[in-house]
This record gives sequence, structure tokens and C-alpha cells, in this order.
Amino acid sequence: MTNTEKLAAIELIKQLKARYLRFIDTKDYEGLATVFTKDAVMDLRRAMEKARWAKTVTTKAKEAASDSGGWLFKGPAAIVKFVRGSTHGAVTVHRGLMPEIDVMSATTARGIWAQEDFIQWSDGPRLRSLHGFGHYHETYKRVAGLWLIKSTVMTRLRVDIA
Amino acid sequence: MTNTEKLAAIELIKQLKARYLRFIDTKDYEGLATVFTKDAVMDLRRAMEKARWAKTVTTKAKEAASDSGGWLFKGPAAIVKFVRGSTHGAVTVHRGLMPEIDVMSATTARGIWAQEDFIQWSDGPRLRSLHGFGHYHETYKRVAGLWLIKSTVMTRLRVDIA
Amino acid sequence: MTNTEKLAAIELIKQLKARYLRFIDTKDYEGLATVFTKDAVMDLRRAMEKARWAKTVTTKAKEAASDSGGWLFKGPAAIVKFVRGSTHGAVTVHRGLMPEIDVMSATTARGIWAQEDFIQWSDGPRLRSLHGFGHYHETYKRVAGLWLIKSTVMTRLRVDIA
Repeated sequence: MTNTEKLAAIELIKQLKARYLRFIDTKDYEGLATVFTKDAVMDLRRAMEKARWAKTVTTKAKEAASDSGGWLFKGPAAIVKFVRGSTHGAVTVHRGLMPEIDVMSATTARGIWAQEDFIQWSDGPRLRSLHGFGHYHETYKRVAGLWLIKSTVMTRLRVDIA
Repeated sequence: MTNTEKLAAIELIKQLKARYLRFIDTKDYEGLATVFTKDAVMDLRRAMEKARWAKTVTTKAKEAASDSGGWLFKGPAAIVKFVRGSTHGAVTVHRGLMPEIDVMSATTARGIWAQEDFIQWSDGPRLRSLHGFGHYHETYKRVAGLWLIKSTVMTRLRVDIA
Repeated sequence: MTNTEKLAAIELIKQLKARYLRFIDTKDYEGLATVFTKDAVMDLRRAMEKARWAKTVTTKAKEAASDSGGWLFKGPAAIVKFVRGSTHGAVTVHRGLMPEIDVMSATTARGIWAQEDFIQWSDGPRLRSLHGFGHYHETYKRVAGLWLIKSTVMTRLRVDIA
């Protein structure tokens, strides 16, 4: 790849990530399903393993997590179902910042992002809001000319709940 | 346009937006007037229409909004007047994040940004601080070689006031 | 330099900055030492001069600052010692956002970034947390093909302590 092709790929991946998080926060679930490869994986296990509050996120999130065997979601449909369930009745703000994207070939790339999410539920029984900080560790694949998210793993620096 | 020309335009627009928000937060109003086209529009109507607190922002902001016919500001002078009035005596922090910029031609572009602002007034009668989250929907125009903001429309996900 | 070379330099400097702040927040001090030139300077004097709380940050930060003659740290070892000391026992979240990077030559560049840091100590005697907003004003140098931080000066818009 030329330098320009690499820079163009990096910019496209930044826009992919921006679109992904915008679709979550604007509750555009049709859009959300389009940002992933068919075999995409969302892995929240490391983010959740130390979180005593993780099981109280909401009943719907619990159900979604349970369906998938616990904080590991495989395929666009399962990912969208989890996002939709865990943020139902909530206003959410998601941030992916300061990307370190490494284009490995014309069709593969990986990246690390600073991560922040701020979720406020109006219908939760116990947990009212969550404000978390951490990192996304991701891989990307270019399919039919389009960069897509192949895997996203979340780690946490801190989570404040109220 | 070549790929490199598009990437260069995207980078220039990112820096334009960064300068714009830095000028607001550092109260550099001479600088602020230079980032807009002569026919630029700032449209806060969608952001404000559901906001019961909107009319209490500050007296000066009310006057500025009223002068312009309510949260739609036309031209650099009206925009700067509104920004200056509504943030007088306030410390402000504005963020434009995760840009999705689409360069449509050598002189036209549009973009969506995740938006956040945090404003704390020391002289407000009722409203002390505002912390908002949403998106900017913008268009840009290249005039005499320089990218400028042609329109900026704000939408909100949430606003916390205290 | 060609446009592509400038764009590539800007992207490398963005990733340098991202790595720098990620190393602070993940407490990777070996990594942290690698992002600076040998004569690098971290200057917090303007950020600290008006801060009545500055001397209470933590005992270790006070010691580190005192060693360096007060909020001016010279060389990677002194910078890492200060960062390590002032964030010991703390969870930290650092942000560098909205970069305005100016590549001046093949080996020199400068940049302004919106800045935010959120630090929560578990072992502080008085100060429990700090949430600051401002700007980084930086210079960069390319050494043996690698962009490094040559100087970083912090200014503040506001600091909230609790």
C-alpha cells in the first residue's frame, strides 16, 4: 500500500467508528447492524469481570448477556440485540477518542481507542447511571471495499455508578 | 480531487473546527469571526426547542437570541455576538469529536461531529452550569483557499443543568 | 515535503500523543519514557500558578515538583518520575483532543490540543479528585525516523477539585 492508501484507510476506519458510536447514541439499530463483519465479536468480559454492578445493568441487558453466554456477543444480530437491550429507556453518550490505528494490509487493520460512556436509565430498578472510562481494542476488515468492525474488546480504567 | 487532496481537506476542516471551539473557550472573538463564511448560519433551534431552561441561559444570551429571531444566527457578527453574550462571565469547555467529514468537491464539504459543552456561569441569576451532549451537523466552504464554516446545526442527546 | 508526507507526519504525531496519554493512564512507565526527546520539557507552571490547591496534590508530587524546581520537568526521567509520583494510587483519565498540528519541516512540528484530565486518588490526605480542562501547547521532533515530544506546556480553563 502507498502512504496515501494507508492514510485513506485510517480516515475511513475513524469514520466507521464515529458512525458506530453515533448509531448507538441515536438508537439507529438498522445503521448499527451495518458496521460489523458477519463474524464480528464484541467482548466485554474483561470490562465486566471485576464489576460487581455488572449483573444489575438492566434486566434486558442481563437477558441479552445470558443469551450469549456472558458478555461475549457474536455476530451483528447478537451485538445489536445486546446494545438495544442494555440501553433501552436510556440516554447514552459513547466516545471513541485518540485512535492508534495500524493498517496491516489492504484489507486488515487494528486499533486502540480511549473509551468513555455515559448512560442514564430512566427505567432501571436499581442502577440509575453509569459513567465509564477505558479503552477499545479492535480489529477491522475491508469487505467489498468497505471497512467493517471485526472485533471490539473493552477494558476499563474506572466506572462510576450512581 | 485526488485522495491526497481529499485527505488534506479533511485535515484542514478538523483544524478549522478545533480553532473555532478553542476561540470560543479562550474568548478570542477576533479569531472567532474569521472561521465563518459571510453568509454563515448557526442554528440552535432543534437543540433549544425542548429545553425549558433555554430562556434562562442569561439575560445577554436572551437578548442576542431575541435579536436574531430565536436561536438562528446569521452572519459572523451575529454568531460572535451570541457566543460572546451567552458565555459572558462563564468558563466554557466545548468539544467537537469523532468527525465524519464528507468532501463533496474542491470547495464544499459537510460533516457530523459528536458534541459536548460544559458552561459554568458566575453571574447567572438562576442557571449556574450547563453540561450538554449531542451532535453538530455542519457544512463547509472553501473561500480563497481557506476552508470556512458555512452552517452549523446543533442537536442534543441530553442536557444537564445545575 | 509533499502533502502526503505532511499528512503522514500529522497522523504519526496524533498516534504519538495517544500513546503518551494511554501510557500514563495504564501506568506503563517504560513506554512513557520512550515518547520524549532526551531534552524534552514538561512545563506546568502556567497551569499551576493560580492553583491554590497545587501544593496539596500529593506528597509525592510535591517532592517530584520540588526536585525539579517547581512544575518544570526536564528530560524523560524527571517527567516520568513526576507523572509516576503525582498519580501514585490514583486512577487517571487523560485526554488530548481536537489537535491543530503544524508540520514545519521534515523533523519539526508543533501542535495545540484541547486537554482534559480526571484524577482520583485513593491515598490522598486532603485532595480526593481533580477534574481539569485546558490546552496542551507542544513541539515535536523527528529523531531517527520517529516523532517524539520535545516540549509540552499546559494551560487551564478550569479545574474542579473534590
